Amino acid sequence: MAEPKSNLTRSLEDTKTLMEVAQGKSGADLALVNARVLNVYTGELLDNHAVCISGKWIAYVGNNPDGAIQKNTQVIDIKGKTLIPGLIDGHTHLAWLSTPETFLKHAIAGGTTTIVTETLEAYPVAGLDGVLDLLESFQEQPIKIFSTAPPMASTSSTAKGVAIEDLNKLIAREDIVGLGETYWQAVLQEPELFLPRLAAAQQSGKTLEGHSAGASEKKLMSYLATGISSCHEPITSEEVLGRLRLGLHVMIREGGIRRDLEAISKINKNRIDTRRLVLVSDSIGPGELLEMGYMEFILQKAINCGFDPVTAIQMTTINAAEHFKLDHIIGGIAPGRFADILVVPDEKTIDAEYVISNGKIIAENGKLTALVKPHTFSKKSRNSIHLPKQMEPDDFDIQAPADSNQVKARIIHMVTDLVTQEHIETLPCENNKILSDTEKDILKIAAVDRTIYPGKTFTGFIHGFGLKAGALACSAAWDTTNIIVTGADNADMAAAVNRIQELKGGAVLCLNGKILAELPLPIFGIMSDLPLKEIDRKLKAIKREANRLGVPFPDPVLSLITLTGAAIPFLRICEEGLVNLKNGKNVDLLVSD
Amino acid sequence: MAEPKSNLTRSLEDTKTLMEVAQGKSGADLALVNARVLNVYTGELLDNHAVCISGKWIAYVGNNPDGAIQKNTQVIDIKGKTLIPGLIDGHTHLAWLSTPETFLKHAIAGGTTTIVTETLEAYPVAGLDGVLDLLESFQEQPIKIFSTAPPMASTSSTAKGVAIEDLNKLIAREDIVGLGETYWQAVLQEPELFLPRLAAAQQSGKTLEGHSAGASEKKLMSYLATGISSCHEPITSEEVLGRLRLGLHVMIREGGIRRDLEAISKINKNRIDTRRLVLVSDSIGPGELLEMGYMEFILQKAINCGFDPVTAIQMTTINAAEHFKLDHIIGGIAPGRFADILVVPDEKTIDAEYVISNGKIIAENGKLTALVKPHTFSKKSRNSIHLPKQMEPDDFDIQAPADSNQVKARIIHMVTDLVTQEHIETLPCENNKILSDTEKDILKIAAVDRTIYPGKTFTGFIHGFGLKAGALACSAAWDTTNIIVTGADNADMAAAVNRIQELKGGAVLCLNGKILAELPLPIFGIMSDLPLKEIDRKLKAIKREANRLGVPFPDPVLSLITLTGAAIPFLRICEEGLVNLKNGKNVDLLVSD
Repeated sequence: MAEPKSNLTRSLEDTKTLMEVAQGKSGADLALVNARVLNVYTGELLDNHAVCISGKWIAYVGNNPDGAIQKNTQVIDIKGKTLIPGLIDGHTHLAWLSTPETFLKHAIAGGTTTIVTETLEAYPVAGLDGVLDLLESFQEQPIKIFSTAPPMASTSSTAKGVAIEDLNKLIAREDIVGLGETYWQAVLQEPELFLPRLAAAQQSGKTLEGHSAGASEKKLMSYLATGISSCHEPITSEEVLGRLRLGLHVMIREGGIRRDLEAISKINKNRIDTRRLVLVSDSIGPGELLEMGYMEFILQKAINCGFDPVTAIQMTTINAAEHFKLDHIIGGIAPGRFADILVVPDEKTIDAEYVISNGKIIAENGKLTALVKPHTFSKKSRNSIHLPKQMEPDDFDIQAPADSNQVKARIIHMVTDLVTQEHIETLPCENNKILSDTEKDILKIAAVDRTIYPGKTFTGFIHGFGLKAGALACSAAWDTTNIIVTGADNADMAAAVNRIQELKGGAVLCLNGKILAELPLPIFGIMSDLPLKEIDRKLKAIKREANRLGVPFPDPVLSLITLTGAAIPFLRICEEGLVNLKNGKNVDLLVSD
Repeated sequence: MAEPKSNLTRSLEDTKTLMEVAQGKSGADLALVNARVLNVYTGELLDNHAVCISGKWIAYVGNNPDGAIQKNTQVIDIKGKTLIPGLIDGHTHLAWLSTPETFLKHAIAGGTTTIVTETLEAYPVAGLDGVLDLLESFQEQPIKIFSTAPPMASTSSTAKGVAIEDLNKLIAREDIVGLGETYWQAVLQEPELFLPRLAAAQQSGKTLEGHSAGASEKKLMSYLATGISSCHEPITSEEVLGRLRLGLHVMIREGGIRRDLEAISKINKNRIDTRRLVLVSDSIGPGELLEMGYMEFILQKAINCGFDPVTAIQMTTINAAEHFKLDHIIGGIAPGRFADILVVPDEKTIDAEYVISNGKIIAENGKLTALVKPHTFSKKSRNSIHLPKQMEPDDFDIQAPADSNQVKARIIHMVTDLVTQEHIETLPCENNKILSDTEKDILKIAAVDRTIYPGKTFTGFIHGFGLKAGALACSAAWDTTNIIVTGADNADMAAAVNRIQELKGGAVLCLNGKILAELPLPIFGIMSDLPLKEIDRKLKAIKREANRLGVPFPDPVLSLITLTGAAIPFLRICEEGLVNLKNGKNVDLLVSD
């Protein structure tokens, strides 16, 4: 796989051309005239301005573009409308449900011109090659996509910790701008593992993305000692303020995982410096993307929630650029920066008439006019499910102690659709097996390693998932190499996992041996190559059918796949067993009296 | 010479200790309690706070330091006074008159804990070895000193352009944070020379320090196409605003070269985002340092000039740290940062009771308590004047065309004490020599190469310097390898240069073959190893005597040595001849009719 060319540094020839255009000695390629320009550096709105663009870059911004506008210059009269910088999503997960290609087709017409994405999904299931394949899919797109290297906090010891040699290869790249979110619990629990990785990334000048959900004040400060430089997890204005005070770049999340903007907008009552506030999506589901849009929706919502429009635009442009040390090339409308510009009616109305990215008009009135580059993922990336055999129903049997009638078992208890606690329940045994109890909403849940020790399975119990019958499985289990499956019935659990094996990845809902609904996810077992509407339709079908079978959650697949995650409190599962995130340790299924 | 150890990255052991202290599981070394803390990230003043320090670093900031305060913790009750971050000078010239050691002894007791200095003085006269020797003198001091690599814009072709291999060695160092000020004229005039150097520094993640004095709008934008990221030259609020709008970090200069703060403070009537405003000294003379102080004086003046105190403190701390991408370690009082903290009465009164740097109290009530590390400059650094012989009076003869009675000559005309223009004057000739005319204040001025082509001399004329008799010479001529000398008399010019040769560098005022006043500058021909008061006394003696001899300028030596500089408009001199900075080209002394 080819190393990416430098897309961030101008050639000397391009710089010389830009210098000529700036001085009006050479003609611009594109000039936007009669514009009001939002200057993110000073916070001013400047009238009667022209922006002259040469190639991918801004050459001139001011009220005297003569000379730079020549015969071959395309001139667009902006008629007093407002230019704002292209929008930046400072934290998201592009390896998620759709391919980046499909995502971009729907995401960028509204004005997002830079995305910073995690890559931690690809690494455990496809290794460095998988990450490189993913990075390759980001190259030469109409917008800029930067990535963070996967740190690999995980519930499973097999997936935990990116290999140092892989990390070093990744952080040497210019398109890797940080080390991805390294959950605070993991860092505090295993400093020997994570500190060297954090230090290596920091010494390469990369940011250290944080994840400090639920960290108490002193834990948070301890976490900061490692050099962590951002957090996208606060959900209240108080949490945001507390983290800003520590010098973190605080990312306000409004997307598929959570929507925190409205609650956090209360921070406007404090009159604080907002330079370190950043708006991010942290991923966005296909339905939400189709119905609401992307960063333009989030920015508009921030304005509607009471953020000063200029402040909100800074939060979606320069603030993110500064965090990632990219402000010399993106985040503002100024000479030498990439020409990433939106034409909007005014600074309060984020409805782009034109989206300009890398100097080219890529969308007009919400319609994408640029071509998104297709990428063919490698055979290896499309073949990431490695079970040695078909699963059998009795693979999900749970052995009971000899001659027991009942046992006390540690059970994952769903407190919300994402947060879990530990419950101790007495469960009946039969034929040396511990039984689930669908009546009491105690289901089996299993994590099946699909990569490192293929087939290795741990089966436990979960309360509160609500399934009255059948089984739900998915190969996109967070932070691990697992397929995660829960069900009221061993046979359906096996059928669902086996169907995933056939599909080479997917989310599958089975009932009585039949597939009720499914979404194939053949790339890394995480991404579909279907069109976005089709993915949305299939996901909605799974949701509808799962809800019909009793699952009370808004997104049953999300609730399932987060159960292997290493970030959300607190009793989790992986192929090695149950994991108490409070200490990062495995805990036994059975509890002695 | 040893590579510096990493002084910026914590060892893993130190990080682990810091994590323990943050959580109150281990005791801090120093705790400041009952403090009001200025939070530069949010702009808030937070009462009843404690700051716990472990080693060089801040472990905890908050109102619950229990646990971190143990038996061996030194506790200082701040009694409601205010903590602000250690002050940063974002642009100065430490290789200037005094040694860094001497400078630090007088500069840091007021609260400056980080300095970013140019190194361009040492490079042309002592090469990479000289710069490394200088960098060595910055190591292991009570405060942090970062440097910029010399780009070497110069009036002389021999001194122009740092060698790429030297640049690469320098920008690989962690204590080199940028490429030093690369004057805009030079960059626009010789892009082939400077663009590769700027690009190399930028690709290493370094800042590109700018110098855009007098650049018109379009020239300025052309300059920005090269990636230049700061300017410390604006002298009005309008110029500051114009440069801020371009995304530059704009440094407001208040020091030995110029004092621009009062004029620029008018910018407060605009209500703009000030995150990219930075206060700097751009060097400070011995007398000013002794009488006024350093960054604490500049900060106090900013407050007195009407800047909001919190804004002014941000301009002297976090804003500079962000510009140099050092904000993860300096610029704010937050966990994980260096413990660089001042205790001041309140945020409006920058009069430090304690100065803490790298976790140690280095000054109390204006008295330095830490030891400044001595540095012995190398023999080579102390032997930088290489004239092949004593100068003779007739070395400053200027040849006239054969049999001319008079000629028209191009003359440097002093418009201010620093700015020059070109005048054409008719001068008499005698014995095939062109004569100066002291009556008309037309003196000879000569630039003598002391390093690269030793002894190579160009002699021209200057008007407005005012010397009625004698000669003034100095080996610290800007941007070149020159000794610069002006005088009413060839013999005195020779005597002054010869005395500099004896001193191995210096500033010397001669009259009738006698030394009226002098300051030895044996290190690089630029720095004295005398105590600061002695330097000040000797400089003042030169000034007094030069003024007495007719020089009308406040700092005659400064006015003299800037005449070789490549930054200040516009007719300059070097050993190769007169240089018109408008095009960077040499111009002839004689003008044909």
